[in-house]
Amino acid sequence: MIKIEYDGTNYNGWQIQQNGKSVQEEIIKALSKLSGKDIIVHGSGRTDAKVHARGQVASFHLESSIPIERLPMAMNTFLPMDISIKEAQEMPNDFHARYSAIGKRYTYHIYTGRYRSPLIKNYAYHVPRPLDLDKIQQGINLLIGTHDFRGFMSNGSSVENTVRTIHSINLEKRDDNLWLTFEGSGFLYNMVRIMVGTLVEVGISKKTLENINNALEKLDRKYAGHKAPPQGLYLDKVFYPLTH
Amino acid sequence: MIKIEYDGTNYNGWQIQQNGKSVQEEIIKALSKLSGKDIIVHGSGRTDAKVHARGQVASFHLESSIPIERLPMAMNTFLPMDISIKEAQEMPNDFHARYSAIGKRYTYHIYTGRYRSPLIKNYAYHVPRPLDLDKIQQGINLLIGTHDFRGFMSNGSSVENTVRTIHSINLEKRDDNLWLTFEGSGFLYNMVRIMVGTLVEVGISKKTLENINNALEKLDRKYAGHKAPPQGLYLDKVFYPLTH
Repeated sequence: MIKIEYDGTNYNGWQIQQNGKSVQEEIIKALSKLSGKDIIVHGSGRTDAKVHARGQVASFHLESSIPIERLPMAMNTFLPMDISIKEAQEMPNDFHARYSAIGKRYTYHIYTGRYRSPLIKNYAYHVPRPLDLDKIQQGINLLIGTHDFRGFMSNGSSVENTVRTIHSINLEKRDDNLWLTFEGSGFLYNMVRIMVGTLVEVGISKKTLENINNALEKLDRKYAGHKAPPQGLYLDKVFYPLTH
Repeated sequence: MIKIEYDGTNYNGWQIQQNGKSVQEEIIKALSKLSGKDIIVHGSGRTDAKVHARGQVASFHLESSIPIERLPMAMNTFLPMDISIKEAQEMPNDFHARYSAIGKRYTYHIYTGRYRSPLIKNYAYHVPRPLDLDKIQQGINLLIGTHDFRGFMSNGSSVENTVRTIHSINLEKRDDNLWLTFEGSGFLYNMVRIMVGTLVEVGISKKTLENINNALEKLDRKYAGHKAPPQGLYLDKVFYPLTH
């Protein structure tokens, strides 16, 4: 398995596709150049266009004479500068980046300064007004735990079981910056971005805690808030059982 | 006066020039669109290509019906997304962004992780090896104070008085990131980047504290270290007397 950091700004997301650049395709191309073979690469899950990762995980079977500790450097030679392999580890044969995962951590960066901040224009969501952090914390408290999160999922997902457990949501503030860190058993399609959009609306009194309760109980997307934009989102870490 | 944040990645620096984009030119163009006039804009000082600013200051005389508190938003409408006016203030007539300045603060970001970090490739200097922070701190202690910093200046500057006072150099570490914050009465051409390069070389034992002493005493560039790359450097703040 490899751990990957990428700047998602210039990608259409993780997943390989017909049109547009994907991170997965770059990884496959690098492995092909390295090994001379076509390698099947499994990611821990998709990330949308413009979403970043500090700890995306991918798995593949590679027969190579390159020692595992040299693999990151060797792959980075063939990867564009906005993708970097940060770690490589040999795993048991049944390890699978997606199916072995037992949890994920995402961070979302919100910037609340009055005027736009060029240095983080591709790395944060600009909400140019003060947010009521007490209210946001109350909203967070409702979201933590095991719930059916169908009301916080975008259309277009075919997943059947929409029950997920959120272990923690941590709120950190420094000056005009706000970071929300989500840890959970897994996240539905766009679930983090919809939770963030909802919490932002709670923080400006456009939505109430009642709306969150309704979204959780009536399982209807219409009660939750907007989908926050992609560039504030970072896939930080994928968790696996200790045995892996 | 206005305070400006910019992402220097796609600019040839602050100063207007024949070839290549400059931040100063964009500011002049925005003011011209706003007022219909050619406005002379003075910056607090130059920044090199790819150097960033969180608090560059510029001054100009503008006759306009726009209230000063609306000026940032009005100017931002005409500026590219990698430049933003964060503040505007009316000043006494004799205020001059450069000549009234009594000090500056710069931050320099170093990343010491083993593998490159795509998310900060345009925002930090990658030094892929551990740095001896004790030694760097000893180097810092030698630099603080009033010295002739001619040995830490790039050629191509015509400045005569090369004595400057460094009030403080602060070292902050988080994980694989290191931030050096310099406050001083003023800085010579490339002085911060050469101090950073020198401190990095001290931190990997390529230079000694003796080298720093020599550079300070013999006023010769050859004793100092390399010039650290531009993308790690941020002009944070320009200081003015309270009367301004």
